[in-house]
Amino acid sequence: MALPVCTPVKRFFRFIQISSFPRRSLCSGVCATNKVYPHRVFSGIQPTGVPHLGNFLGALENWVALQNQYPTVLYSIVDLHSITQPQDPNQLRRNILDLTASLLACGIDPEKAVLFQQSQVSEHAELSWILGCLTSMPRLRHLPQWKMKSKQKSEGSVGLFTYPVLQAADILLYQSTHVPVGEDQVQHLELAQDVARIFNHRYGDLFPEPRTLLSSTRKVKSLRDPSAKMSKSDPQTMATITITDSPEDIALKIRRAVTDFTSEVTFDPETRPGVSNLLLIHAAVAAMGVEDAVSQARGLDTGAYKKLVSEAVIQRLTPIRREIGKLRAEPAYLEGLLTQGRVKARELAAPVLAEVRHRVGFC
Amino acid sequence: MALPVCTPVKRFFRFIQISSFPRRSLCSGVCATNKVYPHRVFSGIQPTGVPHLGNFLGALENWVALQNQYPTVLYSIVDLHSITQPQDPNQLRRNILDLTASLLACGIDPEKAVLFQQSQVSEHAELSWILGCLTSMPRLRHLPQWKMKSKQKSEGSVGLFTYPVLQAADILLYQSTHVPVGEDQVQHLELAQDVARIFNHRYGDLFPEPRTLLSSTRKVKSLRDPSAKMSKSDPQTMATITITDSPEDIALKIRRAVTDFTSEVTFDPETRPGVSNLLLIHAAVAAMGVEDAVSQARGLDTGAYKKLVSEAVIQRLTPIRREIGKLRAEPAYLEGLLTQGRVKARELAAPVLAEVRHRVGFC
Repeated sequence: MALPVCTPVKRFFRFIQISSFPRRSLCSGVCATNKVYPHRVFSGIQPTGVPHLGNFLGALENWVALQNQYPTVLYSIVDLHSITQPQDPNQLRRNILDLTASLLACGIDPEKAVLFQQSQVSEHAELSWILGCLTSMPRLRHLPQWKMKSKQKSEGSVGLFTYPVLQAADILLYQSTHVPVGEDQVQHLELAQDVARIFNHRYGDLFPEPRTLLSSTRKVKSLRDPSAKMSKSDPQTMATITITDSPEDIALKIRRAVTDFTSEVTFDPETRPGVSNLLLIHAAVAAMGVEDAVSQARGLDTGAYKKLVSEAVIQRLTPIRREIGKLRAEPAYLEGLLTQGRVKARELAAPVLAEVRHRVGFC
Repeated sequence: MALPVCTPVKRFFRFIQISSFPRRSLCSGVCATNKVYPHRVFSGIQPTGVPHLGNFLGALENWVALQNQYPTVLYSIVDLHSITQPQDPNQLRRNILDLTASLLACGIDPEKAVLFQQSQVSEHAELSWILGCLTSMPRLRHLPQWKMKSKQKSEGSVGLFTYPVLQAADILLYQSTHVPVGEDQVQHLELAQDVARIFNHRYGDLFPEPRTLLSSTRKVKSLRDPSAKMSKSDPQTMATITITDSPEDIALKIRRAVTDFTSEVTFDPETRPGVSNLLLIHAAVAAMGVEDAVSQARGLDTGAYKKLVSEAVIQRLTPIRREIGKLRAEPAYLEGLLTQGRVKARELAAPVLAEVRHRVGFC
């Protein structure tokens, strides 16, 4: 949720590798007094446009799987987080609908997951204020992301500083028990855990301490610099495949992908990151293991293998691209879906905020 | 609004001395492009219990007058601000209703002024988040009140740090043109003005730059230390008269008021602050000039004059105390009034926030 812009996959709460979590062993959602909360997953994504292949394989495919595994799953388009960086309003409006279309096309099912726009649920900002009154300044200032970002931006805005508190509110508002995060967000989740503990201690148990879910191991790298993650903000257009790229663009980008001077295709991420990245992409889009990808590459040089990878990527993304195209042409439908999502989200959020307000003494 | 706890009159946006502002000369409510906004006054008061005499004479009497002078006047019980300091929830609940009763008893007319509880209008927290994304960290950090308070509290909470942004949201949410402030709050109003300018510049004119209204010159001093303002948090119970004090308590507190060794009653705040404070109180409660109070004191020593002041204070406060007593016995009535206030406040706030959301790009 509201990932820092400095990370390549900048708009995701990173994601659980579901297979590593047998459902029964997830004994989470337990607060200090052993009150058991129903399992709820919350994740957020910043509306910065159409996702790229790294987002799709690293997170969205898992989002789709998760909605079948947990009783309540919430996916929020976190537009309140997105304005911690300057945004063009028209672009932001388009991005929100484009992202909605992309999520649906990738398989998010609004019947299974609550898909909603954060700013449409006023309870996020309201809870954020209350939790901010329970969070000490040093606690926030020592978060490494603020240190890094504030240096880059010569300090930045109050929103940029306080967004981990809003993240905590996003999560706690739904009494979420599980939050998929990347390594760079672990300390922000720890803040949410701390704030839950502080609230529970002061006002009585209300929030489970949300647990980190393992990040996906599918880390797709830049096609131009396989030491870096694939990123939408990469200035090299050839580095990143978006899920709406045309087949021609996909083929071109993969053809130009940086590999090395060995023509044989082998998997060795340390010494051959470029070819290994292609193998990972190939395996992921074709839903097979890396070993199978290596088998299929046998006898091919990297040039020929790139064609094979292109075809597999094109095959995987084409129906998604077409679906996004159709959905983009129906903004009223997308807006209607977000409205439905808002209603469902508020059904969950409103009673929690009402309880918070009562315990704090507002009513 | 949400005055810092370190100030004696800790719960007020300080107040205009109305007589010094002929209505026509208030050419405020004009933003940089000369767009004219209808005059609106906003002020907030923290729910820290029953007001004291200093609050009543320094601010509340002016609040009552203002509601007859401006077309739209909003008075908010700023409970979101109050939790920037730890609060006992039961006490806070009681304080909110006690303050509502006190404001009504002092003459706030819910037909003339929108009297509401801040946390019941979600738009305050929502706008605060958006404005926080337009406020730089150094801008906030250099506010002198934060420097002072954070030293006292070894840093304090995020809420304590960001409350001037919430104040700006409180004011701008209603496109307020006039805000009564005390000297210690001038820089916070300047922040609201800056934020209005920044928003207008980036997204087009929407907010008037709110203007400071002169603070009341009625600064009631502590009865035990006339160099300090009268304060509810004063540890000396004899220092402060609350508007619900019994006649006996009022008489006792004034009898014990610190004066000096001269028995004659003269007005000289510099050299005779104690007696001068009594003269100011006397003049204010009897709605006359200080000169008239001095006249009435002629021939009396301070002991006899204290009796005269007591009687005048008791006469002024008795109907208010009785009315508060009646209203306190009707919590459902008070809650109903706050609900009506919420409805009116939201009628004004919702279209402004909707416009903000649109301009920012959320919809």
